Amino acid sequence: MNSKQYSTGRFFEDFRLGEEIIHPTPRTLTEGDASLYIALTGSRFILHCAQPVAHALGYTNKTIDDLLAFHIAFGKTVPDISVNAVANLGYAEVKFIEPVYSGDTLHTASTVIGLKENTSRKTGIVYVRSVSRNQNNREVLSWIRWVMVHKKDSDSPASDTFIPDIKSKVSVEDLPIYGSLDANAFDTLVTGSTKLWDDFSVGERIDHPSGMTVDDSDHTLATKLYQNNAKLHFDDFMMKDSQFARRLMYGGHVISICRALSYDGLENAIAILAINAGTHSNPSFGGDTFYCWNEVIEKWEIPGRMDVGALRLRMIGVKNVLPKNLKDPFEHTQGKKNYHPNVVLDLDYTVMMPRKTNQ
Amino acid sequence: MNSKQYSTGRFFEDFRLGEEIIHPTPRTLTEGDASLYIALTGSRFILHCAQPVAHALGYTNKTIDDLLAFHIAFGKTVPDISVNAVANLGYAEVKFIEPVYSGDTLHTASTVIGLKENTSRKTGIVYVRSVSRNQNNREVLSWIRWVMVHKKDSDSPASDTFIPDIKSKVSVEDLPIYGSLDANAFDTLVTGSTKLWDDFSVGERIDHPSGMTVDDSDHTLATKLYQNNAKLHFDDFMMKDSQFARRLMYGGHVISICRALSYDGLENAIAILAINAGTHSNPSFGGDTFYCWNEVIEKWEIPGRMDVGALRLRMIGVKNVLPKNLKDPFEHTQGKKNYHPNVVLDLDYTVMMPRKTNQ
Amino acid sequence: MNSKQYSTGRFFEDFRLGEEIIHPTPRTLTEGDASLYIALTGSRFILHCAQPVAHALGYTNKTIDDLLAFHIAFGKTVPDISVNAVANLGYAEVKFIEPVYSGDTLHTASTVIGLKENTSRKTGIVYVRSVSRNQNNREVLSWIRWVMVHKKDSDSPASDTFIPDIKSKVSVEDLPIYGSLDANAFDTLVTGSTKLWDDFSVGERIDHPSGMTVDDSDHTLATKLYQNNAKLHFDDFMMKDSQFARRLMYGGHVISICRALSYDGLENAIAILAINAGTHSNPSFGGDTFYCWNEVIEKWEIPGRMDVGALRLRMIGVKNVLPKNLKDPFEHTQGKKNYHPNVVLDLDYTVMMPRKTNQ
Repeated sequence: MNSKQYSTGRFFEDFRLGEEIIHPTPRTLTEGDASLYIALTGSRFILHCAQPVAHALGYTNKTIDDLLAFHIAFGKTVPDISVNAVANLGYAEVKFIEPVYSGDTLHTASTVIGLKENTSRKTGIVYVRSVSRNQNNREVLSWIRWVMVHKKDSDSPASDTFIPDIKSKVSVEDLPIYGSLDANAFDTLVTGSTKLWDDFSVGERIDHPSGMTVDDSDHTLATKLYQNNAKLHFDDFMMKDSQFARRLMYGGHVISICRALSYDGLENAIAILAINAGTHSNPSFGGDTFYCWNEVIEKWEIPGRMDVGALRLRMIGVKNVLPKNLKDPFEHTQGKKNYHPNVVLDLDYTVMMPRKTNQ
Repeated sequence: MNSKQYSTGRFFEDFRLGEEIIHPTPRTLTEGDASLYIALTGSRFILHCAQPVAHALGYTNKTIDDLLAFHIAFGKTVPDISVNAVANLGYAEVKFIEPVYSGDTLHTASTVIGLKENTSRKTGIVYVRSVSRNQNNREVLSWIRWVMVHKKDSDSPASDTFIPDIKSKVSVEDLPIYGSLDANAFDTLVTGSTKLWDDFSVGERIDHPSGMTVDDSDHTLATKLYQNNAKLHFDDFMMKDSQFARRLMYGGHVISICRALSYDGLENAIAILAINAGTHSNPSFGGDTFYCWNEVIEKWEIPGRMDVGALRLRMIGVKNVLPKNLKDPFEHTQGKKNYHPNVVLDLDYTVMMPRKTNQ
Repeated sequence: MNSKQYSTGRFFEDFRLGEEIIHPTPRTLTEGDASLYIALTGSRFILHCAQPVAHALGYTNKTIDDLLAFHIAFGKTVPDISVNAVANLGYAEVKFIEPVYSGDTLHTASTVIGLKENTSRKTGIVYVRSVSRNQNNREVLSWIRWVMVHKKDSDSPASDTFIPDIKSKVSVEDLPIYGSLDANAFDTLVTGSTKLWDDFSVGERIDHPSGMTVDDSDHTLATKLYQNNAKLHFDDFMMKDSQFARRLMYGGHVISICRALSYDGLENAIAILAINAGTHSNPSFGGDTFYCWNEVIEKWEIPGRMDVGALRLRMIGVKNVLPKNLKDPFEHTQGKKNYHPNVVLDLDYTVMMPRKTNQ
């Protein structure tokens, strides 16, 4: 009996600048995924819940939740990009380009846009730009991500170094607004809040009132649904020997939980347009209870549109502490600034919201 | 940085007799919800499981489980009606008026039909009649519910008192029977039991044989699916300081578990027509194992129909004790009658069952 | 108040050689079931995930996972066949005859093909051949199974003894290949592995790299989805008094977990054609972490086809131990051969895989 290897994923040396990696396995999203996402997060954002409301706004059907589509598209990149990752360093320029509907099939590919070997020569940083397209080959999602990856052999020759230009935010001109959207007839009765784009001010902070405890079954069901197969989320036996002594929650699911919690206060943030940056500042585990607050960072009119505006928000996700008891996500000790140990998420993102001025 | 409030729900003073409250957020029910409901309860009632069987009985498609539709419709009322509730006092006249199918969108509104301030002046009782309609604006569900709600200010003037007339049961004349139903060709092979309406006797008790343990993940997934956002079901961190020291299970989900368990013995109770009254006599938690029995309270012919009859049933749900070890849901001590501490549900409801006499 | 009985299932004396038992309740499978199956297993096999890929291979739509369809069909037989079973002794000749699609309704019937009373006269063995058909009455699944069942009365007369001929494997001539399949254009980019039928050798062992912890919520959700109502999977209160002191995981779900884990290394095993035999060698519980390996037992060309071949595999499922640390599923002590206590599954099955030679 002999033994043969499965793919063990790519090491730093395996990446070539400019190469395109086509990720298995394309995935058809369905009503089953949409319902599961509601059960896993409790999300109530209207475009993903109510077909007639979505239709009245110009969408073909109710849409698959922006983050559900993202997690599935992102999960596809894990086997090729981050299975050997030491650390997920960051992501940027996440754009939610077109709506995804039940029945759409997403396939995802990544282009290596940057490489930098670390001075230790044991690891390197890989930058990729990933694009997820639907069955009509239309781009529905794209993002940049960079990860630190092990080298197979620290003696292998250093690759060329190229560090791509990464934007700190998706600017208002680049925000993807769905062409058929018409929010002029938006009825706030469907969301239960009359607070629209006009009513928010830069600097405002919203402490969302609800908390949600996430159990091990919940987050592993979610991450399996996303077909993200990073072992540390699933394998409690292996993780018992890690510094965490147990399974880690997928950070993307923490974003989803916080987004769902943010409904109370941001009811009319009907779509996510972009994620500008994100930090998973502390690990999360089954049994943790999440809360969050949002701060308005920027408020943008959208060129050529009076029916919707954009808000750039900073979402702070915390666990096992109420937002009102945390003035600041950082602790300042001895001149150093570190995230408070209960802060698990610091997300810079942009949402679309109907405007009052059209009414 | 300033802070702005989300809606904190209504207090007693905020309700006006006769006012209609339109609840966010309309919800499209799908096959995803139906499958999740099976996974969460193990339900096997035939109208919700088998398209050809439902179709042969006159339905357009297999129907969304009566209780799933109810929980979702009910969940919509929580933010407006019961977020500040001290206690859910009761519900009555729950009518399952029309079948709900995958693809239907339910929107729910409540009318304030009664108000009564308590003598303490700190709380009051609000009575609402809620109606859930589908995308064609047809009533599919309606019910009456009354809750005790905090006053914002105990010194605020007392409102007018009006206590509505609430029926102790939905009478046989008012039972909603689906117009296109024709159960003359009902085949008991599909349910596995030949025991039909004719075979049940008033006074009969059926101890259902199976038990089901419900974990925290299960009941929170269910309650998130129902988009019921009452905090005490989800927030273990907050609940640690409560008398229960942990998350409470949504009582409606206990009804669903008991209904699913009742399949063995009530296989042909193909639809729920009404819920007449219900008491959640003790709290339930993750890890509890549920059992139930049903007693036949009344047996009704349905005017003008020979194919189906109605049974008014009393369902007693218990936890962590076998029904055969409980003769009575009550304990009688020192002249006082209290629910046995393991009794969690006392539900008075009416089901439809095909009749033998048509065969 | 009197008490009436539900069906308590069949005892040995209730089975007659040659009789056909039609099992309740037919079940329509939907996209909801398919999504839940992904969430419960993390499965990534391409025919069940991606509509355009399945369509390009000749299928009408993406197919319901072979094992999901099997578990649901199998679950239907539990109330009639194995509710009073002392032991599930074995299954064989499981054939995946036709694809199952979302919207198909399966109904299952079993024929008693063998009976043998045990010498104790307290139990007997019942052999059934079960067939699951879709709404067009086409056979989609069939299998043989034998269980040891209690006698109601050890003094009742012995039945005739008939032991059916059971094949040790589904031979290559009998493998069901879907008629419209055309894998000539199969593109390995969709699965991420270029390792096709031609690349496997008899005797080869593949240690699959990932592990998966399954919690109590997960496996009970799965088994409820399958509508398998065997009490020992659900009723923790009852099981506290058993030798296991807790709920047992449904063995079929362990097969599903292992099949999902086998994706890394068997990416192109796009369909299961047959299960030849299976042993659930040790019980599994919530909290166990599963791993598996596969060995190639036989490699078959399929008569008349150059696009796909078959591999007969032996899948060993283990818990809480890495495959690399187990050379052999058996322990040999004092001349006796027993399964290692961490081996939970020994499955002999046959998969279909596209061939290189057509490219």
